[in-house]
Amino acid sequence: MKYGVLGTGMVGLAISNRLAELGHEVMIGTREPSKSGDKLKSKNDAVKIGTFAESAAFGEVIFNATGGAVSIDALKMAGQANLNGKVLVDISNPLDYSKGMPPSLFVGNTDSLGEQVQRAFPKLKVVKALNTVTAPIMVNPKRVAGGDHDLFICGNDAGAKETVTGILREFGWTNIHDLGDITNARAVEAVLPIWVRLYGKFGTAMFNFKIVQ
Amino acid sequence: MKYGVLGTGMVGLAISNRLAELGHEVMIGTREPSKSGDKLKSKNDAVKIGTFAESAAFGEVIFNATGGAVSIDALKMAGQANLNGKVLVDISNPLDYSKGMPPSLFVGNTDSLGEQVQRAFPKLKVVKALNTVTAPIMVNPKRVAGGDHDLFICGNDAGAKETVTGILREFGWTNIHDLGDITNARAVEAVLPIWVRLYGKFGTAMFNFKIVQ
Repeated sequence: MKYGVLGTGMVGLAISNRLAELGHEVMIGTREPSKSGDKLKSKNDAVKIGTFAESAAFGEVIFNATGGAVSIDALKMAGQANLNGKVLVDISNPLDYSKGMPPSLFVGNTDSLGEQVQRAFPKLKVVKALNTVTAPIMVNPKRVAGGDHDLFICGNDAGAKETVTGILREFGWTNIHDLGDITNARAVEAVLPIWVRLYGKFGTAMFNFKIVQ
Repeated sequence: MKYGVLGTGMVGLAISNRLAELGHEVMIGTREPSKSGDKLKSKNDAVKIGTFAESAAFGEVIFNATGGAVSIDALKMAGQANLNGKVLVDISNPLDYSKGMPPSLFVGNTDSLGEQVQRAFPKLKVVKALNTVTAPIMVNPKRVAGGDHDLFICGNDAGAKETVTGILREFGWTNIHDLGDITNARAVEAVLPIWVRLYGKFGTAMFNFKIVQ
């Protein structure tokens, strides 16, 4: 499968490198590829570099690994035509750092960033996933507790969720909960307020939640 | 220790019965004690019944087990004079059922119900706790996974948090995380959106989150 990964931060690099390691073709997308050299030093050699639009055109499945505040702009730069009909794994979180630390959310409760993205790109098959864990755990859940902890996905398209579940299983995820349609992004994005506080308290992001019954 | 428990729902009854079982003196408080007979059939015989005000006056430590939407009104009926200087364990959640199911929150993100209660009663030592689990787990965490799962508390008064931690340990809690001051109620109340969806998905409320590292 060919993947486009939008965003060259910690999340975009982790996703891109892991997909390449698993033998997939990957193009990481950035605003200005010519200026991204130093930033991409830790990139797997097999990962191609392009603009947001080139990366989106390349991928059959796209990952949104951009910051929540710029996600819709980045997707606009990727271009409707390059996105239409494709699956988007939306990892972004609506973190608002403008009101001090820890961050609050710039959308929530009766709406979500996942829904905003879906509304802005109605022909994109948005699946919210991976936003509740740090990048190294996203791509290798076995890094903590042998991988026995939980992940949530949601989205409107059943086939898209099946595709994403397949990728997540390749990453090593076993406990994947499909919460339903994209409105459930309200709930998975609302995990962030406690996540950021625990991150601050533990001094590490290498943790996740396991549901016990 | 003498406890006042405000609210005669599933939460108020569970807390009252457990405190009585542990040998404490308890008065459960309700709007109209004379009308609460049937509702309180499952009450431990040792648990006294009174008005909100009588219960608050009786208790050295008070539990707010009323619904989030009526908590501030119930506390007003309990009376400032009966509350001042005491510890309040605030279990309430700001659930808003007016916009359909699953419920949204009527306050959140940059404020919380815990903070609203603290602002309305500045001399009360509010400790948010137990709001992220169902009543039977609140009072007996060993009901799931041998009790090895996590609880969050927050509040402005260190001594009050110590008192509440002691009660929680009597209930059987071992993994208790103090997140800091009462503003952190924003985070623990924000657990509800995912909690209510998992409750719907699992068809049972007998679950909790365990942090794995």
